[in-house]
Formats: sequence, C-alpha cells, structure tokens
Amino acid sequence: METRTKIETRYPECDRMGVIHHAVYPVWYEMARMDWFKAAGLSFETMNSYGVNPAMVDLHIEYKAAATYPQTLYITTMPGRYAPKKLELLYETYDEDGKLISTASTFHIWTGPDNRSYNVEEKLPEIYERIKKAADE
Amino acid sequence: METRTKIETRYPECDRMGVIHHAVYPVWYEMARMDWFKAAGLSFETMNSYGVNPAMVDLHIEYKAAATYPQTLYITTMPGRYAPKKLELLYETYDEDGKLISTASTFHIWTGPDNRSYNVEEKLPEIYERIKKAADE
Amino acid sequence: METRTKIETRYPECDRMGVIHHAVYPVWYEMARMDWFKAAGLSFETMNSYGVNPAMVDLHIEYKAAATYPQTLYITTMPGRYAPKKLELLYETYDEDGKLISTASTFHIWTGPDNRSYNVEEKLPEIYERIKKAADE
Amino acid sequence: METRTKIETRYPECDRMGVIHHAVYPVWYEMARMDWFKAAGLSFETMNSYGVNPAMVDLHIEYKAAATYPQTLYITTMPGRYAPKKLELLYETYDEDGKLISTASTFHIWTGPDNRSYNVEEKLPEIYERIKKAADE
Repeated sequence: METRTKIETRYPECDRMGVIHHAVYPVWYEMARMDWFKAAGLSFETMNSYGVNPAMVDLHIEYKAAATYPQTLYITTMPGRYAPKKLELLYETYDEDGKLISTASTFHIWTGPDNRSYNVEEKLPEIYERIKKAADE
Repeated sequence: METRTKIETRYPECDRMGVIHHAVYPVWYEMARMDWFKAAGLSFETMNSYGVNPAMVDLHIEYKAAATYPQTLYITTMPGRYAPKKLELLYETYDEDGKLISTASTFHIWTGPDNRSYNVEEKLPEIYERIKKAADE
Repeated sequence: METRTKIETRYPECDRMGVIHHAVYPVWYEMARMDWFKAAGLSFETMNSYGVNPAMVDLHIEYKAAATYPQTLYITTMPGRYAPKKLELLYETYDEDGKLISTASTFHIWTGPDNRSYNVEEKLPEIYERIKKAADE
Repeated sequence: METRTKIETRYPECDRMGVIHHAVYPVWYEMARMDWFKAAGLSFETMNSYGVNPAMVDLHIEYKAAATYPQTLYITTMPGRYAPKKLELLYETYDEDGKLISTASTFHIWTGPDNRSYNVEEKLPEIYERIKKAADE
C-alpha cells in the first residue's frame, strides 16, 4: 500500500530566494500522511472518533532539489518499521518530470483517548493487519 | 489605554519579492490584540478560564508601505466602537523610524462558554468599565 | 468572468478552538485571485515576464461562519471597481452545501517593472478590455 | 560559542489538539540559527552582501514534550561537524523550567553568489576560524 498525493505549491510558501521554504515540507508530508492513513482505513474523522492519534516524535527531511511556485509535486508515502505501538512512514517527493525533490521519514507513537500509549494490534486489529501487510509487501 | 507591541519579522514571512507577505499582518495584529486585552485585564489565560472569546467577524487592513526581513516594527492598538456585546479595535504599524507601514481595524462579537453572544457589561462589569474608559479617552 | 476555486483545508490551518484561523483566509483569497488573473490572460508566469504586479493596498474580510478541517470550500472571484491603474476584486467563500463562510474584497494598484504605477489600459490593452468587459457584465 | 534564542509561541501555531504544530519548529530553529550566525560574524545582511548562503540539505527534529500557547521557550544552538564547504548545527529547546521540549540538527552546504558550492575556509577565513574554534571547544 503506497499512496500518491498531489501538491500544488502556494505563493507565500516561496521565500525571498524564490524557493519553497524548508518549513513548508512538513505540512506537505502531513497531507501525504493523512492520505496514507485514509487508505489504511484510518481517515482523520475515524481517528477522531476512536480518540487515537499517531503522535509525531521524529521528523527527518533530506532536501535534494529546490521547489518553487507555481509547481505541481507528487509525494509517495510508504510504511517503514512498525510495531503494535509505533509506526514509521517514508516519503519521496517528485516534480512532474520525475525529478526527486526531497525524501523524508517520520516516526509516530500511537496514543489513545487518555493520551497514553495505544496498542493498535490489540485495539484495532484490522487496521494493524493492513499496516503489517503494507509494510511487509 | 493604548498598547505598543514590538514585532521582529521572520525570514519565511518574506515572499519572493522580498517583502513581508500580506497574510502575515493578521497574525501580528492578533499578537497586538492579545497585548491590549491583557492590559485591559483579559489575558489569554483569563479569557480561557471564563470561557469568553472575542470572535472576529471583520478584518480590514490597509497596506501603506512594504515591510521586509530583518526588520523591527511597532503596533499601536486602541479601542474603537464598543457595546456590551461587541468591540472594535484599531491598529497602526510603524517601523523604527516612525514611518507608517499599515493600519487596520478588527471587529469582534463577544462569545461565552456556550459559544453564544456574551454580554461583557453584565458578566464582566470591571472589564467593560476599562474598555469604556479607554474608548472614551 | 467569474472563477471558482476549490480549497481543501489543511490540518495546521485549524486553531486550538477547532476552527480555521482567520489569517489563513488571505492565503486562500490569493489562490482564488491567481485563478481569476489566469482566466483574464494574466497567469503568474505572464505577470512575471511583463514585470507587472497587482500590489495589494487594501484587504477586507467578513467572517460569516466557521470553517474547519477537513473541509472542502469554494471561492467565487469577481471584478469590482476598475480603472487603468487600479483593480478591485470581490470574493465569496461557500462550503459544499452552499453555506456562505466568508466574503472579501481586495484592492490593487498595478505596478510595473520599475515598481511604479502601471497603466494596464495603455500597456496591456487586451487584458484591460477583458477586465472591463468582466466588470461591466 | 553557543547562542540562546528566546521564542514566544504565537496563537495560530497551536493546532486543534492545543499543542504547537510540528511544522513550526523548523521556523524557530531558523531564528535560532540566524542568531548563531550573527554571533559568528555572519549576520543575515552580511551573508547577503557576500552572496553566501548556508543552504539546508538535511533537517532532523526529535519531539520530546509538547509546547503550547502562550509559552516562552529557549533554544540553545551549537556547531556540530564542520568542513570548508559544510556545516552542521545542533539545537536544544527548553521551556522556562528547563524541561527539554525538542532537539534538532540541520546540515548546510555553503553556496556562493553563483549558487555553487563555496569554500568558507578560503573565502572567509576569519569566519571559518570562529566556526572551527566554536566547534572544537
């Protein structure tokens, strides 16, 4: 299970050097992540109704080539390492010609309604099965 | 009662033309407004504890001269029209040489814990007295 | 000539009260404006190649109903008053059920390559004709 | 040479869960970095006049504890690995009680006026000496 998210850059995301500012990328990666979770059966609304949240504890971005405005980009999102209470996601951003713009990884600890660690394997076995299958593909 | 808020511009607030993007100004005016409310006895924490909120219904900004990064700006905040359930605030932004960068007004409807209209004159008479005095000065 | 711009709200645009922060709206209105200018024959790239820019001098937003995340919104953009060196644009934002979320107007002074006032009627007569026709419809 | 940068969180930086959104941290780290470069003799204006730029190629953030609004934070910035054409910076964010909120590292390639790789040891020996001394302390 890989998802592909289309991003249209916005004018104010460009800095005074004419390139997209590096702090915009985490926002795009979050949009890509929401698409991936939705494909895994965990839309934002579903997460909210369960009170479950993939709290981000680690963000790593490598900037490979500059992006600008206006530009269309595509982010591929894939699962990385996983465990009942944790999940890593991996991302690749490309421009329309297939040139690599950036790669990234984010690491998440699942938290539940009480804001404590949450065991997805136990509480949401179907979702966990999908993550597992996607990661092992 | 006028307050003066110091603003240091941030690098990503500058757009590709080298000037601060117009959508940053409402963020600055909100910082200035928080300072003014604090001076009126309504810090953010106090508002939260009362469940009271000055919901913004109207924003008007006039852009007089460009701002850039790095730059230090000062915003003067003053009350405008007021009523038990409403409040207008007026703003002027200057650079360090006293040059006018922008003026603005915001209009707020007071809402209470139930998210409905809230009568500040009745519920928070001391605060209302201060607003009234400041506006009539 | 009216354009319709589709907006998908983003997670970090929501504030701690669960509603889209008011400073996000100018960014959306700029996206809608870019679509309108493109329809008028002035894409961002074309503006750049001519060195012409509709500098914003006035922004007025009325907030009618709260927006949230995730939500799809539509902005209608129309011309208002116009003159050879100036242009007003008018906007209406609706949710998917046709409920009015916000209205806005922006006022622009045309500037040219030297960053001075620019006469669109003289310099870009075809574009001016389209603006005129659209505004008089 | 370590610098300490004071950060006041802003209302719209808080997301709907009441915590500062993770995409805000890179903006704070950039503010901290600008302070560090200034202390090293390379203010933003100086960099601009030389046409030199520490292009970011890698960003790594670890989120240790949530931040909120209003809150005052302090970022300590230190040099990491360095070479004539590269520089790593390390960061630690603390709250007012000294609790660790986040750590980060950024990796930069020096670029010159032609946007190509730039040898700071050769071109700006005094600055390089200061970086070296700071990193070896």
